Amino acid sequence: MVKQERAARTRHALVKAAAVEFDRAGYEGTSLARISETAGISMGALTFHFRTKGELAVAVQRLGRSATQDVVTRVAAHPAPALQSVIALTLELARLLEKEASVRAAARLTREMPATTAATAWYPAWTHTVDELLEQARDGELRPGTDLRTVAALVAHLVAGAETHIRCRVPHTEHQSADAQLAQLWRLVLRGVSANPT
Amino acid sequence: MVKQERAARTRHALVKAAAVEFDRAGYEGTSLARISETAGISMGALTFHFRTKGELAVAVQRLGRSATQDVVTRVAAHPAPALQSVIALTLELARLLEKEASVRAAARLTREMPATTAATAWYPAWTHTVDELLEQARDGELRPGTDLRTVAALVAHLVAGAETHIRCRVPHTEHQSADAQLAQLWRLVLRGVSANPT
Repeated sequence: MVKQERAARTRHALVKAAAVEFDRAGYEGTSLARISETAGISMGALTFHFRTKGELAVAVQRLGRSATQDVVTRVAAHPAPALQSVIALTLELARLLEKEASVRAAARLTREMPATTAATAWYPAWTHTVDELLEQARDGELRPGTDLRTVAALVAHLVAGAETHIRCRVPHTEHQSADAQLAQLWRLVLRGVSANPT
Repeated sequence: MVKQERAARTRHALVKAAAVEFDRAGYEGTSLARISETAGISMGALTFHFRTKGELAVAVQRLGRSATQDVVTRVAAHPAPALQSVIALTLELARLLEKEASVRAAARLTREMPATTAATAWYPAWTHTVDELLEQARDGELRPGTDLRTVAALVAHLVAGAETHIRCRVPHTEHQSADAQLAQLWRLVLRGVSANPT
């Protein structure tokens, strides 16, 4: 029992260290030796728990998805108009990306691992809920005739932009947190940019 | 003269190979040995032209910025309402990201190299022109009271989203090219998402 607990703790420490490394250096740039060093756990113990870098990457994606799903559950449980919930979810995701290496690593690994599937990728951990909320928002909240798939794609682009913002502070956004920036963008997107929309 | 030409050709081949590798494996995941292999040029010749990986990365960023600036110049020269030019520029950037490894590498290296400055980063190669165009669009084209910096940040988020879209085909966008997707998003953004904007 104590032995099992110790093993679980070692596994968790390895996955946390791997998250930091994958977030910082990417899939190709991360080595098992470096993860072992960051975790302060021997290579022998590491390879006992994870035989390959790919196995560790999947464990990191799982950790990042799990933190993401907690946020999704929390936002979905909060009573609010559906479109407001979509916005709140994107702001929570921006905060989570800013705070959690495992979430940033999960997003990054989705881009960098060719073998990433819907079960391990980061986006599907939250986009299904966005789809459901948009379906609810269709009557009365969204402008009539708005295509739901296009709104869903816009949401995905904004969250991807927030991640980029966090990683490299794109121009005009240097002095804002990613979620404060996103809240401003939403105000613009809700009412529209054009003086003469066609 | 012939010798100089040969040297220039070798340099160019090395930078092109480095662009492919930095795009694929990122800064940390790329080695000089791998670039030498991809280019089919000996390590001796490589290190004669570029002493470090950092030098090659800067050369790749320069190549990607130069291709980007060509597109910026072309769009800016085309007579059109300023807001339309901003949209056209983002679509051209999406096509360029889809087509050119050096441009994708420049965007990726901006995220991954801590020492990236405004002179080497990818975003400043085109965001200044966006700023100028938005300034022109302020009277008559943009909805009155729209904050230009927020529109500029929205443009940056959309282009970052397009890059992510190209790298991992986010949900709802799998079957579209990045520029076709972006054109749809702009139609939505111009007229606004909300049925009851405040």
